Amino acid sequence: MESIGDLGEFGLIRRATGRALTPDVLLGPGDDAAVIAAPDGRVVATTDVLIEGRHFRLDWSSPYDIGRKAAAQNLADVVAMGARPTALLVGFGAPPTTSAEWALRLNDGIADEAALVGASVAGGDTVSSPTVTIAVTALGDLGGAPPITRSGARPGDLVAVRGRLGWAASGLHLLEHALLGRSGAGPDGLDGPDGFGGAAAFLAAHRRPEPPYAAGAEARALGATAMLDVSDGLLQDLGHIADLSGVAIDISAASVPLPPRLPGEKGTATRPGEGKTSSESAAGVPAAPDPLQLALTGGEDHAFAATFPAGTALPATWTVVGRVAEGSGVTVDGAVPSVRGWDHFRS
Amino acid sequence: MESIGDLGEFGLIRRATGRALTPDVLLGPGDDAAVIAAPDGRVVATTDVLIEGRHFRLDWSSPYDIGRKAAAQNLADVVAMGARPTALLVGFGAPPTTSAEWALRLNDGIADEAALVGASVAGGDTVSSPTVTIAVTALGDLGGAPPITRSGARPGDLVAVRGRLGWAASGLHLLEHALLGRSGAGPDGLDGPDGFGGAAAFLAAHRRPEPPYAAGAEARALGATAMLDVSDGLLQDLGHIADLSGVAIDISAASVPLPPRLPGEKGTATRPGEGKTSSESAAGVPAAPDPLQLALTGGEDHAFAATFPAGTALPATWTVVGRVAEGSGVTVDGAVPSVRGWDHFRS
Repeated sequence: MESIGDLGEFGLIRRATGRALTPDVLLGPGDDAAVIAAPDGRVVATTDVLIEGRHFRLDWSSPYDIGRKAAAQNLADVVAMGARPTALLVGFGAPPTTSAEWALRLNDGIADEAALVGASVAGGDTVSSPTVTIAVTALGDLGGAPPITRSGARPGDLVAVRGRLGWAASGLHLLEHALLGRSGAGPDGLDGPDGFGGAAAFLAAHRRPEPPYAAGAEARALGATAMLDVSDGLLQDLGHIADLSGVAIDISAASVPLPPRLPGEKGTATRPGEGKTSSESAAGVPAAPDPLQLALTGGEDHAFAATFPAGTALPATWTVVGRVAEGSGVTVDGAVPSVRGWDHFRS
Repeated sequence: MESIGDLGEFGLIRRATGRALTPDVLLGPGDDAAVIAAPDGRVVATTDVLIEGRHFRLDWSSPYDIGRKAAAQNLADVVAMGARPTALLVGFGAPPTTSAEWALRLNDGIADEAALVGASVAGGDTVSSPTVTIAVTALGDLGGAPPITRSGARPGDLVAVRGRLGWAASGLHLLEHALLGRSGAGPDGLDGPDGFGGAAAFLAAHRRPEPPYAAGAEARALGATAMLDVSDGLLQDLGHIADLSGVAIDISAASVPLPPRLPGEKGTATRPGEGKTSSESAAGVPAAPDPLQLALTGGEDHAFAATFPAGTALPATWTVVGRVAEGSGVTVDGAVPSVRGWDHFRS
């Protein structure tokens, strides 16, 4: 098997950068730096680092899915500013023994996700590292409009979300409780006639989030006053809007779009021989978190949450989940929630 | 000791981003993405990843120096395009037990290096990683001029360098051969009346390269046809210009600016009791590489190498080291060199 060490840094870069560049990339990989169009005279820029074992597991996700996810979370950040993504830069660290095929599939995933929004990979860096590490930077153009920040929410605004909440977290729960430590075990044992179309949809949501990228331009057109992408959980992320806007946000629990119930939940605990044919699934799925908890605290679906002036007629793609008020902090039905999300060092 | 885990991701980001932003940063840290001025309508962008044990050692370099180096190598890439750096984005991965003081000193080093060129840190990401990882993205503005790429060299052009060659590699050699494994040992034992001002200058060059940033604007004003920063060794990096320009480059060995000779070199091997007062330095420094070899193959000083039309009157800051000709590849005094530089996976 050819490794990235066999290929060498420059061989890998040559193989990975053979794809067509989008028109915004004026000078692509191969020089000291790339040159990317910034017609607006400003550039939106964000960077996220994904670490093996922390943000993905090599036995739970394919390299292609990891690439899709790494690109998606950065592209979603650009879109959450109301901007159009123009290009990605990709820093990649891995052991020299990593297969070249693995690295190239990762690159394919990144490039395919970027292509969804008309962007391409303009450059990057490839290094040796004991830990597989993916550092993605995304750039974007505002098209002459002001950025939609986290600081513009005003008392009286509607709070709305577009996209899924709690799906990726449900998938992660399934993997952690049913497959943990069983390297190579597929998700199929978890699927079954459980009423929500199989766990596969949750697992896919964890492995390859699908941010509704159209939300950015749509929110801008609708006059959004603040926006972000939900990466750490709705409550925690709305907390950033509340803090930076100097307002309070109250969520109506009944209005939050919920993921389907996980199997094995309290009240519906799986009994041996019932509904499942695999002993693995019967034994492996303990009591599951509540759908509301998953929707409020689960991150990584990269839904978009935004605030809009009161009275804005929102299309059906957006769900109103709460209201901005004078004050501070985030409440659910007027009460302070006990769990808000996750912190990358603490959880 | 307060750790970054104690502080938490958001606490660390709050503490690290308290510095003043430069005017190009229109929206700084705290939102989904930063917004940076790109008055030229284009943005120059580059990213480099530094890995503990590969690009720096925690027992050889202070966090402040590591930060300076991480910023410098990215800023040098922007300058090598003929652009003015405007902002950095910093991805930082480290174990949660890492001291907060360490992380903040790293950040200080990055910010101070950026300040040298009038740039600041516009955003970033902080994650938990078993390996200390620093992913820096640098952005820059071309001010209306075309980028100085690697592909513009023409037969007849002069090849010139500005900055040091082989100094950082000399420092690395000293550390690898004299201090390896002696955690906590300072460099002072290597200093002495050895005729070049002490090994400290080499060690400093390795720990904190000082790219001559003024070279970028100067080369542009002088009509440089191609340029890059020397990160992997002069021969290997000039090889990129030769390849991408479709030309040959011949270096005149006698014209290459050399670092001072390392102590312990063949013919000047240190004898016990002679010239050194420390037993460590007498025992620790074996035969050293030749200064020419270090100058031709040593990377990480981030000197700038550029090609200029024949007849260009170069100021004394630039040293002409060779000539562009028809053909391909890089030669030294007409001969193909055996060692060209390093590859991040192979060396």
